[in-house]
Amino acid sequence: MTDPDADDPGDNHVAGDDLDAVLEAVRERVTPDAAERERLEAAAADLADRARAAVSELPSPADEADVLTVGSTARGTWLAGDRDIDLFVRFPADLSREELERFGLRVGHAVLPDGEEEYAEHPYVVGTADGFDVDLVPCYGVEAATEIRSAVDRTPFHNDYLVERLTDDLAGDVRALKAFLKGIGVYGSNLRTRGFSGYLTELLVLEHGGARETLEAVADWHPPVRLDPERHGAAEFDDPLVVIDPTDPERNVAAVLSGDNLARLQHHARDLLADPRTDLFSPGEPTALDSASVRGHVARRGTDPLAVAFDAPDIVDDQLYPQLRRSLAGVERELSGLGFDVLRSATFAAEREAAGSDRRAVLLVELADRRLPAIERHEGPPVHVRDHAAGFYDKYAADPDAYGPFVADGRYVVERERDPGARDALAVLDSDRLFAAALGARVESALERGYDVLAGEALAELTDEFGVDFREYFEPAV
Amino acid sequence: MTDPDADDPGDNHVAGDDLDAVLEAVRERVTPDAAERERLEAAAADLADRARAAVSELPSPADEADVLTVGSTARGTWLAGDRDIDLFVRFPADLSREELERFGLRVGHAVLPDGEEEYAEHPYVVGTADGFDVDLVPCYGVEAATEIRSAVDRTPFHNDYLVERLTDDLAGDVRALKAFLKGIGVYGSNLRTRGFSGYLTELLVLEHGGARETLEAVADWHPPVRLDPERHGAAEFDDPLVVIDPTDPERNVAAVLSGDNLARLQHHARDLLADPRTDLFSPGEPTALDSASVRGHVARRGTDPLAVAFDAPDIVDDQLYPQLRRSLAGVERELSGLGFDVLRSATFAAEREAAGSDRRAVLLVELADRRLPAIERHEGPPVHVRDHAAGFYDKYAADPDAYGPFVADGRYVVERERDPGARDALAVLDSDRLFAAALGARVESALERGYDVLAGEALAELTDEFGVDFREYFEPAV
Repeated sequence: MTDPDADDPGDNHVAGDDLDAVLEAVRERVTPDAAERERLEAAAADLADRARAAVSELPSPADEADVLTVGSTARGTWLAGDRDIDLFVRFPADLSREELERFGLRVGHAVLPDGEEEYAEHPYVVGTADGFDVDLVPCYGVEAATEIRSAVDRTPFHNDYLVERLTDDLAGDVRALKAFLKGIGVYGSNLRTRGFSGYLTELLVLEHGGARETLEAVADWHPPVRLDPERHGAAEFDDPLVVIDPTDPERNVAAVLSGDNLARLQHHARDLLADPRTDLFSPGEPTALDSASVRGHVARRGTDPLAVAFDAPDIVDDQLYPQLRRSLAGVERELSGLGFDVLRSATFAAEREAAGSDRRAVLLVELADRRLPAIERHEGPPVHVRDHAAGFYDKYAADPDAYGPFVADGRYVVERERDPGARDALAVLDSDRLFAAALGARVESALERGYDVLAGEALAELTDEFGVDFREYFEPAV
Repeated sequence: MTDPDADDPGDNHVAGDDLDAVLEAVRERVTPDAAERERLEAAAADLADRARAAVSELPSPADEADVLTVGSTARGTWLAGDRDIDLFVRFPADLSREELERFGLRVGHAVLPDGEEEYAEHPYVVGTADGFDVDLVPCYGVEAATEIRSAVDRTPFHNDYLVERLTDDLAGDVRALKAFLKGIGVYGSNLRTRGFSGYLTELLVLEHGGARETLEAVADWHPPVRLDPERHGAAEFDDPLVVIDPTDPERNVAAVLSGDNLARLQHHARDLLADPRTDLFSPGEPTALDSASVRGHVARRGTDPLAVAFDAPDIVDDQLYPQLRRSLAGVERELSGLGFDVLRSATFAAEREAAGSDRRAVLLVELADRRLPAIERHEGPPVHVRDHAAGFYDKYAADPDAYGPFVADGRYVVERERDPGARDALAVLDSDRLFAAALGARVESALERGYDVLAGEALAELTDEFGVDFREYFEPAV
């Protein structure tokens, strides 16, 4: 029934134009074959053995730790070609945090001699083995997910819950749905993407009984949507999608998901249901916009875009992107408060080549007009509010630079001279006034070390680093 | 007790800096002396006699009409130097409208052989006699002010009500308050001024027991304010000041008063109470701004003022000013709807030299920026509103000139190309788009015959005709 060319992204439709056929074709493409499965299982088993050996060398009671393979490789829901193995070392709960970190790193370096340390809530070791990317993460063994001491302590419970429930057929549907989320750009719970995590995807498929059923449900959702597979939810959340963790009644598995990414999934789910085709399951290769096109867009839009470009602070993406977004919102609020009309905004950061290496970041605000009049209207109290009104009148009647006070709509009104430094948004951003905006602390420090402001077609100077981001900004899609 | 120079406007204070002394000085200045009173009374009596003689020549039952002197001259509340006499001919109520008009004009022309016809609700004759400006107005004699057939039929009832109640002392206070209202520019119930009528002034003084008491009350008013001297009000009004007509429970005597003029009175009343001085009772001579000053203000404000200048329609001021204001509001709404930011606006008309003569009028709008971006943001429905959202998406996905649809804050958003004719407010006003604005009908016809649009410093070209208006606009006071 499936088209033999279905895994070619250039081929949009399968025989019969039928969603089931499309999903089947995708499942076939993204399900690892027996050889791949065997290679991965062998590698995982070998790594686990080496980890257990390293654990046995630790002093008591750390030598009682058990070693688990977790994540999609353990649950059979990884996509063909993925090469990630997650190995957890679960230490007794009476170890101190310091001991857990020290012994965790010791095991990690033993298993991955060329590995490097990364830092989430604890430090952990990442490295490669047998061609796989391996994370070796220490956690605490606790009785229940509600008693965790660190976020990663939850993972083994997730693993147990899913391994019990995911049939091979459902695992295939999880793979298909993951491929769809990747294809439309909303897969991943890191704080750059703010999309759907693997665990969330698995829970959605479990809850609805399949990929098709999930997509049909999503297409009709009216956020906020609340799912509670174990009917034990014990907290209220303000998020557009709430999926109560089956292992923890107080946690929303979808807390990271942005409302816009939820809307994007709804859009694309409807598109897929209306016109089933496989290309939606394969992300297009992002292409960069060239300088001439950037200049062309700026000219065509007739707006005043301004970019603050600077060396990003040396922090991981999960810290950087929230800081950039907070800073961008602060700059927008500051400019709006001064009277500028912000049409759209975005923040970009270049890829991080390696820990400690420099990369540039951009705060982009696009204004209707970067220049404001030399006066600003300022409405005072209604004239009848006697004391308050008199104070306003007396203040401005004595100001030789103000027009008025005059009366309009029953109020005193003046037209004050606008601060000369606040009449041009370029001057605002290119001065200490930038720091009046509420900025992320690390972004603020980075800006204090220096930055450039580019206006209008000069944005094109950033194309080498941010051509792909400019493509998304100037040729936006859902 | 009064300062001998108190009627010199250059002299602000009277001995003791006391409000009673100031009011007394003003009363002295604005109360006609015995010679003036005698001259006016003699002239009014002579005119009334001539009117009665003319009435007696009319066919029955028009010859039963009686002749009344009404208005401030009849009530002893006119200001020294005023030279207006209002004479009413009150015809039997069973006359037809056509007969009333015909006989009214016949009497008018007999009394005022050089008089001209003017038109309010009925035609009437205005002319001069013995150096006085005389209005000779026909009305119907009805049983009560609630049964009037024409607005002027009310006047004799007002006259009777006030003549019975206004003592000489209160009449003096009415004069002082009228002088104050004139001094601060809010006296007159014509539709250009939208201020306080003489009748309203008289009722306020009666109600509060004097000029000082009225000013003290006004200073503390919290509009809407409702006064009902006869405690018989039978209707609700939406006006900032409601004074129920003692002769008609369904009429608000202050219906014409604008909220801003009420606020101005509150402001100046407080000023007078805080710092009693006579200059507030004498309007300054309005001075014109010269072209260089107009250009200077435009440059200093850094805004984009635009003026539509045209030949005013040939209608009386009480029709013209409401039409101009309605048209200005329509133009403002139209420009705001297109996305322009209107900072302030005004409408001017030159003085009317004589009925039928040409005069120019101006609609002035001052914009933060006359130019807008080539794109405009257009927010669609939330993505989750499935049918509605799909219609929006399909419409703009097919538009090659639109940016998007993309998702922002859970909604579909596009940036549409702005109509090229709507990117510059000058082009909007200088094209047929001006007529998309809701204009007063007579102003619309006048504009159809042609108009000029002046932008920025070119406004100075209008200074010869509108220098005084520019003074009020660019150097606004309360």
